[in-house]
Amino acid sequence: MIIIMKSGATDKDIQAVVDRVQELGFTPHVSRGTERTIIGVIGDERGLARSNFEVMEGVERVVRVLHPFKMASREWKEEDTVIYLNGVSIGGGDLTIIAGPCSVESREQLLETAHAVKEAGAHMLRGGAYKPRTSPYSFQGLGVRALEYLAEAREIYGLPVVTEVMSPDLVSLVAEYADMLQIGARNMQNYALLHAVGKVQRPVLLKRGMMSTIQELLMSAEYILSSGNMNVALCERGIRTFEPYTRNTTDINAIPALKQLTHLPVIGDPSHGTGKWDLVTPVARAMVAAGADGLIIEVHPRPEEALSDGAQSLRPENFARLVREVRRIWEVLREEAAVREA
Amino acid sequence: MIIIMKSGATDKDIQAVVDRVQELGFTPHVSRGTERTIIGVIGDERGLARSNFEVMEGVERVVRVLHPFKMASREWKEEDTVIYLNGVSIGGGDLTIIAGPCSVESREQLLETAHAVKEAGAHMLRGGAYKPRTSPYSFQGLGVRALEYLAEAREIYGLPVVTEVMSPDLVSLVAEYADMLQIGARNMQNYALLHAVGKVQRPVLLKRGMMSTIQELLMSAEYILSSGNMNVALCERGIRTFEPYTRNTTDINAIPALKQLTHLPVIGDPSHGTGKWDLVTPVARAMVAAGADGLIIEVHPRPEEALSDGAQSLRPENFARLVREVRRIWEVLREEAAVREA
Amino acid sequence: MIIIMKSGATDKDIQAVVDRVQELGFTPHVSRGTERTIIGVIGDERGLARSNFEVMEGVERVVRVLHPFKMASREWKEEDTVIYLNGVSIGGGDLTIIAGPCSVESREQLLETAHAVKEAGAHMLRGGAYKPRTSPYSFQGLGVRALEYLAEAREIYGLPVVTEVMSPDLVSLVAEYADMLQIGARNMQNYALLHAVGKVQRPVLLKRGMMSTIQELLMSAEYILSSGNMNVALCERGIRTFEPYTRNTTDINAIPALKQLTHLPVIGDPSHGTGKWDLVTPVARAMVAAGADGLIIEVHPRPEEALSDGAQSLRPENFARLVREVRRIWEVLREEAAVREA
Amino acid sequence: MIIIMKSGATDKDIQAVVDRVQELGFTPHVSRGTERTIIGVIGDERGLARSNFEVMEGVERVVRVLHPFKMASREWKEEDTVIYLNGVSIGGGDLTIIAGPCSVESREQLLETAHAVKEAGAHMLRGGAYKPRTSPYSFQGLGVRALEYLAEAREIYGLPVVTEVMSPDLVSLVAEYADMLQIGARNMQNYALLHAVGKVQRPVLLKRGMMSTIQELLMSAEYILSSGNMNVALCERGIRTFEPYTRNTTDINAIPALKQLTHLPVIGDPSHGTGKWDLVTPVARAMVAAGADGLIIEVHPRPEEALSDGAQSLRPENFARLVREVRRIWEVLREEAAVREA
Repeated sequence: MIIIMKSGATDKDIQAVVDRVQELGFTPHVSRGTERTIIGVIGDERGLARSNFEVMEGVERVVRVLHPFKMASREWKEEDTVIYLNGVSIGGGDLTIIAGPCSVESREQLLETAHAVKEAGAHMLRGGAYKPRTSPYSFQGLGVRALEYLAEAREIYGLPVVTEVMSPDLVSLVAEYADMLQIGARNMQNYALLHAVGKVQRPVLLKRGMMSTIQELLMSAEYILSSGNMNVALCERGIRTFEPYTRNTTDINAIPALKQLTHLPVIGDPSHGTGKWDLVTPVARAMVAAGADGLIIEVHPRPEEALSDGAQSLRPENFARLVREVRRIWEVLREEAAVREA
Repeated sequence: MIIIMKSGATDKDIQAVVDRVQELGFTPHVSRGTERTIIGVIGDERGLARSNFEVMEGVERVVRVLHPFKMASREWKEEDTVIYLNGVSIGGGDLTIIAGPCSVESREQLLETAHAVKEAGAHMLRGGAYKPRTSPYSFQGLGVRALEYLAEAREIYGLPVVTEVMSPDLVSLVAEYADMLQIGARNMQNYALLHAVGKVQRPVLLKRGMMSTIQELLMSAEYILSSGNMNVALCERGIRTFEPYTRNTTDINAIPALKQLTHLPVIGDPSHGTGKWDLVTPVARAMVAAGADGLIIEVHPRPEEALSDGAQSLRPENFARLVREVRRIWEVLREEAAVREA
Repeated sequence: MIIIMKSGATDKDIQAVVDRVQELGFTPHVSRGTERTIIGVIGDERGLARSNFEVMEGVERVVRVLHPFKMASREWKEEDTVIYLNGVSIGGGDLTIIAGPCSVESREQLLETAHAVKEAGAHMLRGGAYKPRTSPYSFQGLGVRALEYLAEAREIYGLPVVTEVMSPDLVSLVAEYADMLQIGARNMQNYALLHAVGKVQRPVLLKRGMMSTIQELLMSAEYILSSGNMNVALCERGIRTFEPYTRNTTDINAIPALKQLTHLPVIGDPSHGTGKWDLVTPVARAMVAAGADGLIIEVHPRPEEALSDGAQSLRPENFARLVREVRRIWEVLREEAAVREA
Repeated sequence: MIIIMKSGATDKDIQAVVDRVQELGFTPHVSRGTERTIIGVIGDERGLARSNFEVMEGVERVVRVLHPFKMASREWKEEDTVIYLNGVSIGGGDLTIIAGPCSVESREQLLETAHAVKEAGAHMLRGGAYKPRTSPYSFQGLGVRALEYLAEAREIYGLPVVTEVMSPDLVSLVAEYADMLQIGARNMQNYALLHAVGKVQRPVLLKRGMMSTIQELLMSAEYILSSGNMNVALCERGIRTFEPYTRNTTDINAIPALKQLTHLPVIGDPSHGTGKWDLVTPVARAMVAAGADGLIIEVHPRPEEALSDGAQSLRPENFARLVREVRRIWEVLREEAAVREA
């Protein structure tokens, strides 16, 4: 159960609700947002009536949530969450396209790619500064230098930037440069990191772990939301299965499933989902057709020279074709939705 | 390596090639089609030159095939295979929609469903007469009675019929009634059954096993092709993974991967791929956007009364909406393909 | 619910119970054994009292079974099933070791292997006559010739023989030669084949499908049991997972889980479970330590020349060491069990 | 390739080798241990001869390593690594048993459990102070208070303590109290954390991720080793598969596979590997029979009251029986190994 306080609720009102929750044998979980305070009621709520709280001073609404994820659920918030970043929005009906290299390899490589993806219709720029690599001997990213190049590219091309943060102590540094913080698949259940990004005022792109269920992804989002940061987008990037032909198995079912279960935007990553550049465009089309709010695509001017993920990176001209095709499919969906609502 | 004989090649020409193959230490595999004979060369062909055979009498062409599947590969046959069934075609650019109940439950239920799916735009009728059920105590299908109802529905509504066959000794019976024979996921590696359907002149819909790789699916198709039946369509119907939210995980990557690897048509089954009716339409759109040649959809007039698979069956009105949406996406793809070729 | 009739129950008694089952809205499932008749009550039995049947003429006992598998469950039969084959028994406290080549390749190869495994302490001989191969171009087995060699080896060495049957129409032929019929992993849900082996009086070794759950394995056993053949042993042979280092992942948990859930004997197959000969002995030890009733091991006099599964076949001297080690572990378990019961 | 310097090598010797590595187009990776310095040569070393370095001043030995993990491989170090902690050793032929509650819940609960496991034959104490929980609303551990209780239990019962650390900034705090630092399954690829534990002088227990391959586990160990900490034990704790009956699937194959590939000790965790207390003892026996160097077992005086993992926790009396049984199996293996070496 979640108790949403009125925007004018006083500290005393809040305390009274907290006390009542405890009195009834439950644990209160208080999230103070800039607008309003929300009090989660943790425990087996099956025998608990909403009327216990609805009549109290300062309470606006009491919502029952059956899922173990609370603030991430559609029951808690029916309308789509929309994330705003410098003129770009994610969620709420738009199709947002994020593109760029796997790793920032040099100033030239990044600016050349940023120029190309901007031309082709991308709305945001991606690029890894800190790279989680299976081997300690592989290229680990340019670090703060890459952050500076990303900030420069944003200035020149007007593209908000998303980049991965791998450690709690780097969150504030990365947040200085980036518009959106990415939590990578390997860190989806790094709870110290989830808490850390929950405490800053930067939107978060949370990638699904390659070994994680849909529910676990939502529980990890819940860590961020319940720490105070409501701007979270989820990313389906393929799961690990027995199939060896592709790097991962894109879980296309997860896209409409997430759209039903949660109000958070859902981004598809067909580059990691397939691991093969010649499957990226058809799977990107599929993700949009399934209802994704956006895509994140690896693009490199010369994939054969890439320091990481070359096999799954598109050349700019193929990326331009991808953008044209997914936009046409998205328009079909928008028109069909309008027909249904009419 | 595969040696394609001219259509006028004599038995003597063929025997000479066979002898030469053996002389060189390989095993010949002869497929006599109605049009021409094909001789597969089995063994490690890396040191073998095509010129050994190209100069022989009656030989039209010699093709190297690197994949373990030979006759199923694009290298062996570049152009798409098109399957023709009584005015309906599968493959080659069309979008073919197969629909009907999971099980044939009664004459009335089948005719009512056939009428509804015909109205909504389906091209073919599906319906289980023999049902593979995990439990020996579950409904096992109406058997030959169901086959008669299917034949009747075809007469009335002009819809070619596909139905599953589970045992080699029933192949000729089912082939009398049905236009296309389905091999179910559990029988994808039932080699006696693959041989049996390879010997009849009925197209086959081969479903991917729920834990079979893309390559294993193609190897099972190879059993049918090499037994003499070239009319095989492949069906992606979801694989088994760790994700419990959906019945299976639709392997959307497999659709473009198969379109690259093989000339055989690829059908998507979003009903089994998701197991939840409210995910069927978005995943059907995704399959078409990824390049599927058709869809097979479970439809029931009253899903809540279905004897099997009720949870994943669409009502006729939802099926009609699905057909409209996937056709619009298919038109976008057709137009984009025309642009690319222009 | 399962109703066990007295051994002297008349046809009229049985019919009365069947009628009563139907009257109450359930479906009766009658199994007539040589000794006694058993009537399964199929349907949602939660509101059904045992007393409905306990008072009826000819009824010995009424048992509630919560699992979907009934006759395979410990609830239905508490004591271990023991299978007897010409002086060898499987189940009930013994450790039964089955060994031999993957495929019967020649009379000499089979007799040489049979001699070696007999010397090393094996109780039964295995060898494939009909081989399920992923590729239609791979060696498919020697067929009936192999069956004859197996029968000859049995005569010479006194080892009962188990071999795979892949098709319902070959069941009676294979049953003529073999002491035990193997259902391979790919055919675990080939229901026509399960019915066929359920109708003959030959024990069955049912291998778990590489994609099948523990419950599905028990449901497949239920097909055989409910068709009238009570002599079924289950075989854990590894499942398919994401791990590429080994051919399959041995599900060691399944061994004690099956011993709890069912009265049927459980055999471990570390050859397929690992796919690597140098992992076979440690995993064989683990299977016995986990409670397996026996092992089935691939042995070849010269693994490097084997036509199939060479990489996972043991040389006779390594097999002899395996037998010695697993017997010592089995003795420890037997002594510990005696301590617990004292 | 790895270049091991003599213990008396000078800084100048080391620099000369580093320069030579770079000259040849490779990247040097220098690890300065307390005893000696090791220089890894990163890059495609196939055309590189050992003689390039063997003749240089201060070089003791040059080793080729084909695996992507270098310092973790048996090729780099043939003899078993033995970890010493206050009189207890892990690896090198001993069987080390670690036991204790999932979470430290109170001083009383911990001391009671420590007493019981000591009595039953455990060598080390486990207990969670910081708990990685899927839900932000679940019990997250007592934190530093738990660390104090663990230290107290060590003093009283003489059991070295292992406990999980979840964040780089807590490594030095946890290392003050604990004898061994655990990296949990969810953090196996948290590279910032791996680096942090690689920099302290505390042995590490590295748990395999629930969907990580054997090779990835070794690569994560490589992060710790190459950061300077050579005392790493690996833990097989079950992987995620399609099987729902057990919480995880114990990958028993991984135990002998790891013993072949690496010199690091291997610990089995049957509590997480099964998730069911009544499967823990048979699977513990299997792990020891497969060659594990030790076990880590969850024990709780009253599992039904546990705040976490009650279903998989053993009562002390069942744990005592487990210890007796696994020791007897371990003795069999030791005797058989002695026979082989004789």
